[in-house]
Amino acid sequence: MKLRNLVGDRFKERPADCVIDSHAFTIRGGYIKYVANGIYSLYPPMKRITRKIEEIIREEMDAIGGQEVLFPVALPGSLWEESGRFESVGEELLRFKDRNGSQMVLGMTHEEASVQLVREYGQTYTKYPFMIYQIQTKFRDEARPRAGLIRVREFTMKDAYSFHTSQEDLDRCYDTFYHTYNRIFQRAGVPEVIAVQSDSGMMGGSVSHEYMLLADAGEDSIVICPECGYRSNMEAAPNKVVNEGGLEMGELEKVYTPHCKTIEEVVDFLGVPVEYSCKAVMYQKNSNDEYVIVFLRGDYEVNETKLTNYLGEKVHPAEITAESGIAAGFTGPYQLKADCQVIYDSSLEGIQYLTCGANEENYHYKGLNIPRDLGEIEYVDVSKIKTGGICPCCGKKTIQVKRGIEVGNIFQLGTKYTKSMNMTYTDADGSVKYPVMGCYGIGVGRLAASVCEARHDDNGPIWPVSIAPWQVHLCCMRVDQEACKTAADNLYEDLQKAGVEVIYDDRDIRAGAMFADADLLGVPVRVVVGPKNLKNGQLELVTRDKGISKLIDLGNAVAEIQGVIRELFEEINAQVEPRK
Amino acid sequence: MKLRNLVGDRFKERPADCVIDSHAFTIRGGYIKYVANGIYSLYPPMKRITRKIEEIIREEMDAIGGQEVLFPVALPGSLWEESGRFESVGEELLRFKDRNGSQMVLGMTHEEASVQLVREYGQTYTKYPFMIYQIQTKFRDEARPRAGLIRVREFTMKDAYSFHTSQEDLDRCYDTFYHTYNRIFQRAGVPEVIAVQSDSGMMGGSVSHEYMLLADAGEDSIVICPECGYRSNMEAAPNKVVNEGGLEMGELEKVYTPHCKTIEEVVDFLGVPVEYSCKAVMYQKNSNDEYVIVFLRGDYEVNETKLTNYLGEKVHPAEITAESGIAAGFTGPYQLKADCQVIYDSSLEGIQYLTCGANEENYHYKGLNIPRDLGEIEYVDVSKIKTGGICPCCGKKTIQVKRGIEVGNIFQLGTKYTKSMNMTYTDADGSVKYPVMGCYGIGVGRLAASVCEARHDDNGPIWPVSIAPWQVHLCCMRVDQEACKTAADNLYEDLQKAGVEVIYDDRDIRAGAMFADADLLGVPVRVVVGPKNLKNGQLELVTRDKGISKLIDLGNAVAEIQGVIRELFEEINAQVEPRK
Repeated sequence: MKLRNLVGDRFKERPADCVIDSHAFTIRGGYIKYVANGIYSLYPPMKRITRKIEEIIREEMDAIGGQEVLFPVALPGSLWEESGRFESVGEELLRFKDRNGSQMVLGMTHEEASVQLVREYGQTYTKYPFMIYQIQTKFRDEARPRAGLIRVREFTMKDAYSFHTSQEDLDRCYDTFYHTYNRIFQRAGVPEVIAVQSDSGMMGGSVSHEYMLLADAGEDSIVICPECGYRSNMEAAPNKVVNEGGLEMGELEKVYTPHCKTIEEVVDFLGVPVEYSCKAVMYQKNSNDEYVIVFLRGDYEVNETKLTNYLGEKVHPAEITAESGIAAGFTGPYQLKADCQVIYDSSLEGIQYLTCGANEENYHYKGLNIPRDLGEIEYVDVSKIKTGGICPCCGKKTIQVKRGIEVGNIFQLGTKYTKSMNMTYTDADGSVKYPVMGCYGIGVGRLAASVCEARHDDNGPIWPVSIAPWQVHLCCMRVDQEACKTAADNLYEDLQKAGVEVIYDDRDIRAGAMFADADLLGVPVRVVVGPKNLKNGQLELVTRDKGISKLIDLGNAVAEIQGVIRELFEEINAQVEPRK
Repeated sequence: MKLRNLVGDRFKERPADCVIDSHAFTIRGGYIKYVANGIYSLYPPMKRITRKIEEIIREEMDAIGGQEVLFPVALPGSLWEESGRFESVGEELLRFKDRNGSQMVLGMTHEEASVQLVREYGQTYTKYPFMIYQIQTKFRDEARPRAGLIRVREFTMKDAYSFHTSQEDLDRCYDTFYHTYNRIFQRAGVPEVIAVQSDSGMMGGSVSHEYMLLADAGEDSIVICPECGYRSNMEAAPNKVVNEGGLEMGELEKVYTPHCKTIEEVVDFLGVPVEYSCKAVMYQKNSNDEYVIVFLRGDYEVNETKLTNYLGEKVHPAEITAESGIAAGFTGPYQLKADCQVIYDSSLEGIQYLTCGANEENYHYKGLNIPRDLGEIEYVDVSKIKTGGICPCCGKKTIQVKRGIEVGNIFQLGTKYTKSMNMTYTDADGSVKYPVMGCYGIGVGRLAASVCEARHDDNGPIWPVSIAPWQVHLCCMRVDQEACKTAADNLYEDLQKAGVEVIYDDRDIRAGAMFADADLLGVPVRVVVGPKNLKNGQLELVTRDKGISKLIDLGNAVAEIQGVIRELFEEINAQVEPRK
């Protein structure tokens, strides 16, 4: 199509509210339009990108036997009551009533709907295994939408659900998905996406992986061991700490630490290394507001997911009241009188000489020795691993913590939904059983934005040819010169006839503005028809990633351009692992 | 794919709640699954059908310069407040609040969202005209969903919006859509869909057409003149009634009509033709409950759309209270004492001798003459035209009233939305103007169900090849006989390799059950591999519509089958009008 007709504006100024580059470029390039908090309309270029991503996903799902279905966006609340999630999921599940007062929810995930769809179908073992998927709008009432399409409230998602008669069969399917997801991200031009172990959260189930695109702008922390290949979401990563040698046991001594409330202030004031301090982090249980105090080494942070999993219930940061008996800022494990649950993180284990709060305003202890002063206590791993930490897999101190954007996830759900929703099948031997399930998601819009985050320069996105809105961006530099205009017009026609996706800029504007727009649209192959080269019967061809820059003959332009497009596809395909 | 793996069940019994055939077949054939009132999930066969319909629509939209976008399902209420529709639209607009208490609605149509998307883009005349469209989920909280996918609450729709700087340009675009819509329905295999004039209803604007598929199960009445080609929705059709000759003027006479409450009872009791009676139909205005009494000829019905348009406000059927002064069942225009607005339908004009209520329990008048007894009154056309009525176009008494299902609509919106939402552009002369808009919808799922309604036999749907879930249904009659199984298996492979969409039934079941399933799936070409024909190296090929039934050679089967598929496509294409 002609760029002059393309709906949407492109502009130079970075909007003030755009913190990350992909957000800025998708706004500046006329890709998305803000409608409400976390809700966007898509302009044609982004719609073209997401459609291509959807087609890649569809092909890959079909190739592994997926059957495409469609679930409703608006679901009856009763379905979510069956699974128990109507109660257990927080405010991100949008609940509303219809005109007849019936309770409804907006689908944020479709485990319940998938079980409802196949509950009658899957009544005998001969029907298994099967896998269904949809590509559909979802709504998740996020408290803090951010970063353009990265974290929104309404989004398009591919979600798949598999059903099996055995764990082994689920394992096989899960493995197939594991590799198929790699293929999808490789085909979308971001082969660096990695699968990391993750916590299953509200989905239930045990084994799960998240697919992460490494990016400084990501909101997830990823734990990587370059030595052995271990990869995990921070939430799911064990933190093994070995405290050996160092300060020796000494006397327990109460010291005056005026106005030292944070552990950093205390260790600074007392001149002890932070590795020999014990800090307290306080929570309250959501269910009954009971206090939970976590003691951990001063240089570690609490991993709230691991804490929640250990407690078996959710917590929130504590509000310390006068009646609680807690001396905020001076809390320590010795002679703690508050009525609360105490948890000792395993980062404290083995330290002989600890500095900690004295449970008294302006006082700390030096020289705490846990076995001596507190007796036998249980250590629990509830802290976050740090860069340089011990790899839980190979045991070397090689851990790196990086930032990433989650672009997909796969879960083994077990029988959580089939049991709660009473989906059963009769097995070969006549016994009645619950099928086991897996579920597998990819956020389409988030993937598009993530690719932009991973593939851009200062001037705009650099779209991989497989998902680019167009393949060729054709610029006519002098529409006022007939030869130039005619050559560009003809090439536009010829490219279209050859099936090349081309956006044609035949506006009478200066070169700088024309190229700025082309950079913002990020189309992989740029072809420039200018008077100077045209005199020699030539055009300029430059790829958006600057990998190729050459003059091509006008007479052979279509074939040359098609060749470059093919080359770009081959570059991508070379990174795609074969189907298993 | 293999039928044994197809998710969804097929069964013989017609569900009790299915009034119309397409509803029964889409349930019985494993196409759709009831989730909640007016909300369905789609099984793979229906998803395949709707995807093909969407692709046809997308190709046709792109061919006339449409640019695909995506609007949100969940929209801020403030957008609908801008246009005034947050207030004016009834309960079918689902309103809810998000977790922050912000007012939201579920998009039932996207005029507001489309204006919001292009309001900044369209600020100068050089950007016009342009047309955007989306294919997206919509929610409309219908009071009475019915008939499977025909009238649902959640549905997938293609909606397009065009923007223009002049009415002439809108007219041109509207005309293009008019023909493009014909092409879409023709390509979907239902060339008998007709465009009829319609009332614009809540969309605003003036000119509008509905696309109707004639079907006895339809809920819309369509007015057709076979003589001159006039076609209108009942709602929009003028009713011209000429009363000439007949009973002559006579004395006004009150008569005792015990227990005669309906006009039929009265004319029966008095022995006068119903054409000489005047009946009363009573409403109340929604705004203030004021009574509105419509007097019309006894054999006509009130057209409530025309009544609403005349009154300029909505009405509901009256509740007659004792205080109202209305004698229900005996209401007449003579000496009517009730405090209400009275409307005389033009069907009464010219009748010399009328029977009507006497506004007194058990009494009617005979011989009412309106000019003599009531003086000069205004007649208004608020009645429904009937079969045999006068064509408003050619004037002949040729009107036929038929039933139809609305599968699409096109509206000229004028400046209703651009004015209310303050979308302006600067014209060439520097003046600031409001663009004029058109909007154009097609319900994807409803079209699929309508095609089923129009194309089925007693055993199931007869899908046109262009939208059929598969092109070929391959049956292996004896999987227990190796020659038969091998021939069928090989053909299945060969057809897939040749790019033919094939569903393969290799289950070990009896022929009757196999063919019943095939009938329910309605795939256009059925190929049967059976031992008897196979002995002669032949297979049976039958089209679902019985148009073709022949034996083909196994050796040449793929080419033969492809030939038949091509033939079926050609039949459809022969009915498609050329692009203008």
